[in-house]
Amino acid sequence: MRDVAVIGVGMQKWGELWTKSIRDVFVESALLAMDDAGVDHIDSMYVGSMSPGIFSSQEHLESVLGDYLGQPHIPATRVESACASGGLAFRLAWMEVASGISDIALAGGVEKMTDISGSDATYALATAADMKWEGISGVTFPGLYAMMAVAHMDRYGTTREQLAHVAVKNHANGSKNPRAQFPFPVTVEQVINSVKVADPLNILDCSPITDGAAAAILVPADQVKNYKRPGVKIIGSGHATDSIALHGRDDLTTIRAAAEAGQRAYEMAGKQPSDIDFAEVHDCFTIAEIVVSEALGFFEPGQGGPAAESGATAMGGKIPINVSGGLKSKGHPVGATGVAQVVESIEQLRGEAGERQVKDARVALTQNMGGSGGSCVVHIMEVM
Amino acid sequence: MRDVAVIGVGMQKWGELWTKSIRDVFVESALLAMDDAGVDHIDSMYVGSMSPGIFSSQEHLESVLGDYLGQPHIPATRVESACASGGLAFRLAWMEVASGISDIALAGGVEKMTDISGSDATYALATAADMKWEGISGVTFPGLYAMMAVAHMDRYGTTREQLAHVAVKNHANGSKNPRAQFPFPVTVEQVINSVKVADPLNILDCSPITDGAAAAILVPADQVKNYKRPGVKIIGSGHATDSIALHGRDDLTTIRAAAEAGQRAYEMAGKQPSDIDFAEVHDCFTIAEIVVSEALGFFEPGQGGPAAESGATAMGGKIPINVSGGLKSKGHPVGATGVAQVVESIEQLRGEAGERQVKDARVALTQNMGGSGGSCVVHIMEVM
Repeated sequence: MRDVAVIGVGMQKWGELWTKSIRDVFVESALLAMDDAGVDHIDSMYVGSMSPGIFSSQEHLESVLGDYLGQPHIPATRVESACASGGLAFRLAWMEVASGISDIALAGGVEKMTDISGSDATYALATAADMKWEGISGVTFPGLYAMMAVAHMDRYGTTREQLAHVAVKNHANGSKNPRAQFPFPVTVEQVINSVKVADPLNILDCSPITDGAAAAILVPADQVKNYKRPGVKIIGSGHATDSIALHGRDDLTTIRAAAEAGQRAYEMAGKQPSDIDFAEVHDCFTIAEIVVSEALGFFEPGQGGPAAESGATAMGGKIPINVSGGLKSKGHPVGATGVAQVVESIEQLRGEAGERQVKDARVALTQNMGGSGGSCVVHIMEVM
Repeated sequence: MRDVAVIGVGMQKWGELWTKSIRDVFVESALLAMDDAGVDHIDSMYVGSMSPGIFSSQEHLESVLGDYLGQPHIPATRVESACASGGLAFRLAWMEVASGISDIALAGGVEKMTDISGSDATYALATAADMKWEGISGVTFPGLYAMMAVAHMDRYGTTREQLAHVAVKNHANGSKNPRAQFPFPVTVEQVINSVKVADPLNILDCSPITDGAAAAILVPADQVKNYKRPGVKIIGSGHATDSIALHGRDDLTTIRAAAEAGQRAYEMAGKQPSDIDFAEVHDCFTIAEIVVSEALGFFEPGQGGPAAESGATAMGGKIPINVSGGLKSKGHPVGATGVAQVVESIEQLRGEAGERQVKDARVALTQNMGGSGGSCVVHIMEVM
């Protein structure tokens, strides 16, 4: 297998993009990535999208998007793993370039979520849970993560305030990200007093509904010299699944798919949690970031809450997490999120993150999660 | 890249499987494949499914299915390319084993189409066309393929009877396939006199709505000796896309994605059309088989219709096509079809196809198509 590097990334400002279709949104970010890389064609494309059939009445998306991108006959593939679709598209593009099949692969992700009503969007998202056993009972994602939060609080003493600190930190970071959907700070008091969604989670504990796309260009590491931009090497890739339903798991206070995917990525990269300079993780709800920060080995089980409260995960802390603003502030167009984590990581590792630059960043980790942890994809990237 | 072989396949009898859920249907075929291969675990899994979100209210399918298969923590990926989803899952499993990442990969496909109404299923299928420009005009797939049929008849003189001969041949083959949904013969008169769907296509020119799954187990070719079953080598894999909408194409009398995917597979395999002993192709409508038999180089443009009429594509003819019964008689659970083509090919190449065995078959080709040709995946397999 060949070493693989990222030599271009792109994403537009995310939000409610009502004047644009799903194809417009995707092509906008894909062209930014191709322009960044300095390429006018690609050999193949992987697109992560969770549910374009329900959100946008359009399956067979890769055929639409390849054509609209001006690359009409390439091998193009849509992959889906709920909210981990983008991370999985990135993994498959890595695999294709590593295997020698392609020399220029585009990994993209897109979701256009605001063209249907909020209740329809809630239904669409719920199809990422176990619809036969969870969905049929009426539970949706805030409820599933609320159960995990209650279990974590019960076992470890995690507090309502600690959850709030995750949102406060991510909004503080996102306020410096011009592409974030909600680029403004919030306070602990605002989070705690915001409207209840599923106890103990309030609206400011939840990531939003978003339209957006993101893209990255992957090439063999030994061909980076042929391109205009510095390459960042993909040194670890891990992917794991778990029981989709919470009732099928041994322990609600951790997310095993995140731990397993992380372990596989660390092993491939030859790195440990202490080697990571910053991480973009899947904070679909504040409790998710706390649990994942433990599952990835940044903190001992039960210490994720105190870490968030102490500033250990803030800019300048022991391990800055979600310097982009995370899903919470940047937005969460579900299929695009995993690729957007890569976009932030590459820009940071190239030293181009402006006001939110992590000093001397050389190794980044991205963790993208599907559903309530039924799937997870982790990547580790390093400056070449 | 490593050479890759198939060492096990499985599929149940297809039809309206109302007592089974999508997870039951998938696991049934996957376990048949694992049993055939003699394996009790897999390293990774790719599942092709077009629209489980609309048909079965369940996205994030790979997480559900890995767990239900008793393989709960593996990397599992759902891929979608409309009706080519199964072929694409097979290609990605091949790529993963070829790259060295996995030693035992399962490629599966599944669709459970009869849990929603016929009109809802027609809508679901239409999302594989260009919904913004084609679907919004009310056109569905019989209409799109009817336009291609009219163009083909106009340019080449292809006749209504020639279309019927495709259905007659495939039902004759399918009548010998115990797993076919409609295992009975039909006559030219019955096809021509069956109810009109979209002129010139009648109901007996169309593949049906089906529940079903299929699976195959892939391993490195040099490890075949460790398994109980004979291996069949994957010697060519080609994948291409095209404008999803008919109005975006130069020529309605051919399917460029099929020609390009075929060319890529022939080149990798070092084979020509004349080297192929039999082919399983995507006869979603009778006209599709005629056009594809030309695009793959079995016949000159315009000669696909006469070839069907003359018996050149029948059992014992120049190039037997759809000896399984094809989508027409065997059924078409859209995400499963591409893998079922592989199942038939492997059983034929192992000499285990019983009454429908192609004599001395050594090289097989499968061609799986998305939408009206917006995507296509071709594989060539050879006896080891």
